[in-house]
Amino acid sequence: MSAATGLDILDTLEVRTDDDLGSIRIVGTGLLGTSIGLGLARAGVRARLHDASPHALLLAHDLGAGDLGSGDRQDDPDLIVVATPPDVTAAVVVAELARYPNATVTDVASVKHSVLRELGEQRADLRRYVGGHPMAGRERSGPLGGRPDLFEGRAWVLCPAGPTDPARVEHVARLARRLGATPRTMTASQHDSAVAVVSHLPQVMASLVAARLNDAGPSVALAGQAVRDVTRVAASDPGLWVQILAANADPVADVLLALRADLDAVVAAIGALRGAGPISSADRAAARIALAGALTAGNAGRARLPGKHGDRPGAYEVVTVLVPDSPGALGVLFTAVARAGVNVEELSLESLPGNARGVLALSVLAPARAALEAVFDTCGWRTLS
Amino acid sequence: MSAATGLDILDTLEVRTDDDLGSIRIVGTGLLGTSIGLGLARAGVRARLHDASPHALLLAHDLGAGDLGSGDRQDDPDLIVVATPPDVTAAVVVAELARYPNATVTDVASVKHSVLRELGEQRADLRRYVGGHPMAGRERSGPLGGRPDLFEGRAWVLCPAGPTDPARVEHVARLARRLGATPRTMTASQHDSAVAVVSHLPQVMASLVAARLNDAGPSVALAGQAVRDVTRVAASDPGLWVQILAANADPVADVLLALRADLDAVVAAIGALRGAGPISSADRAAARIALAGALTAGNAGRARLPGKHGDRPGAYEVVTVLVPDSPGALGVLFTAVARAGVNVEELSLESLPGNARGVLALSVLAPARAALEAVFDTCGWRTLS
Repeated sequence: MSAATGLDILDTLEVRTDDDLGSIRIVGTGLLGTSIGLGLARAGVRARLHDASPHALLLAHDLGAGDLGSGDRQDDPDLIVVATPPDVTAAVVVAELARYPNATVTDVASVKHSVLRELGEQRADLRRYVGGHPMAGRERSGPLGGRPDLFEGRAWVLCPAGPTDPARVEHVARLARRLGATPRTMTASQHDSAVAVVSHLPQVMASLVAARLNDAGPSVALAGQAVRDVTRVAASDPGLWVQILAANADPVADVLLALRADLDAVVAAIGALRGAGPISSADRAAARIALAGALTAGNAGRARLPGKHGDRPGAYEVVTVLVPDSPGALGVLFTAVARAGVNVEELSLESLPGNARGVLALSVLAPARAALEAVFDTCGWRTLS
Repeated sequence: MSAATGLDILDTLEVRTDDDLGSIRIVGTGLLGTSIGLGLARAGVRARLHDASPHALLLAHDLGAGDLGSGDRQDDPDLIVVATPPDVTAAVVVAELARYPNATVTDVASVKHSVLRELGEQRADLRRYVGGHPMAGRERSGPLGGRPDLFEGRAWVLCPAGPTDPARVEHVARLARRLGATPRTMTASQHDSAVAVVSHLPQVMASLVAARLNDAGPSVALAGQAVRDVTRVAASDPGLWVQILAANADPVADVLLALRADLDAVVAAIGALRGAGPISSADRAAARIALAGALTAGNAGRARLPGKHGDRPGAYEVVTVLVPDSPGALGVLFTAVARAGVNVEELSLESLPGNARGVLALSVLAPARAALEAVFDTCGWRTLS
């Protein structure tokens, strides 16, 4: 892509560079809208940007996320992405559907049922609306947080309603794929229940754990990695999260009540182990078993999370090897691995500072494990169990 | 350090290489004992290792954590580090104090008051005992998880009791400093209250959030980074954590009850926003304010955490690059990196399913960043911001 100078030229380019997607209008240039524009620009598609805030709009434009329209109005976009804050998403979708009667309109709000309900109440043209939610984000908000690769390897949920035209769903699916994401179709209710567990619950609990640090005085100096990880998302924007939680109140309430029941069991078990009174050995054993049960359930739940990007847990095996203290050792290794035809899916290296040794862990498809171990054997490297 | 062959020589070395610390005996070669041995070895001090498990002992020795004693007995160590599981720590400390009547004895158990109470009951020689707790760990256990830099930049809590000889406290403080940690002195009760908030609470809540994934069905496919971070420590060993939570029941119960009160307020607010019944606009506003309050308290608590390693934030920088879809790409890369003289401290690769591309993140010391970026540039690889 060369830098463009005239709007006429851009209008032409906009239509012709990608006849799969057509011309694209992005409404809302925060983190997600800007990232979509940046990702499209990288793929050779220039979107037209719009935002109620001139500041955010110009910033996204300057960052390379797309072109400015001449005023608010734009000639017949084929695909409109509404990436506004969630509390105005439905109203903006209604307005865009009415203003551009041929366009496919999608959104990126993280709760889908409430948007759909409001569109129904407003008698919007649901045939052209495809609810969407890319499963990607950052604690950082605004255009400056935008990244063209934000969606790569992520799921992008599409929630067609009954009247939705399947060709419109496919249109938005092409957008998701163009940005490196994998479209997944489900109902709005299925989506909302899922995100209550995998996104909204972790957010609430991270905030509640972080809030306990306010009473901790100088104890926070003892903080290690665990509390940092658990509370990372507690840095998120409260205003945005109030909107999300309020819009998804039913599923979130259900999962919070389930967690509270588990918490009550842990509190009872810990309470039984307190120093205050005598406790029978049977009661002590029961309390320890209850605690072990809660922790073991956590092990099992954690193990259900799919591989970092994928859908196939257990398909991969991890081989761990001690990297020798010699210059270029990693280069030798990966050249040998490639020569053996082994495809490394994930890897991590922890170096042992002070020397060049390190512990290298490589994930490979299970059938490739033996070949990889043979490579290490040939190199004379020690595999760890 | 050259590999040593004779125990006589080692005995001599052991005493003479570091007259600050004297000869050191490490009892228990799991994650922490092995890491202490590795860190000391790097600093030129060879410890003598002991473990009830011959397998763990030999593994720690093979990894370079220290020397094997000739049998269980060792001639007059000056400093003994008890790094056993917490439920036997007090008993092992009692035995070591009795067996070696001149040695300073410390431990690394993550709860301090219960150990001290048991030592008092056993009438142990508290003048020579210094309770310790290095604020470092990993979800991985065992010698293979050991790292010489595990304690660098971390706090190492020391909890002298009333009778403890100040010279013994200084002895253990020298050990902590030698391993790169910062000694912090406090009472056992102060320590136990602090870790209830910054360590034990996050562990319990991570487990409870992870446990909710067991009922989530295929929803886990939508998991993003937030739930991964919140639940990372849920992979920890339940057996170890039952011991820790039981040993610290009083402070843990207090902080869990405080969190439950906050959770009840959130549950009430979300409940008020549910779709079931009509709600007045005043009640709706009150519910939203309650949610915003919980989330804002989380922001404030999160902001109280000190920088990542406490002392030296920003020493490392991460360079992220898109690995091209070509055979042997990693081999080419690491050969070029080695040739440029760049030392990679840590790296991680996330592959993008369906093709051989991936996102590679490399941590390097800040001054090496430019050299690394130049390598990528030369290779024609795209660095991500």
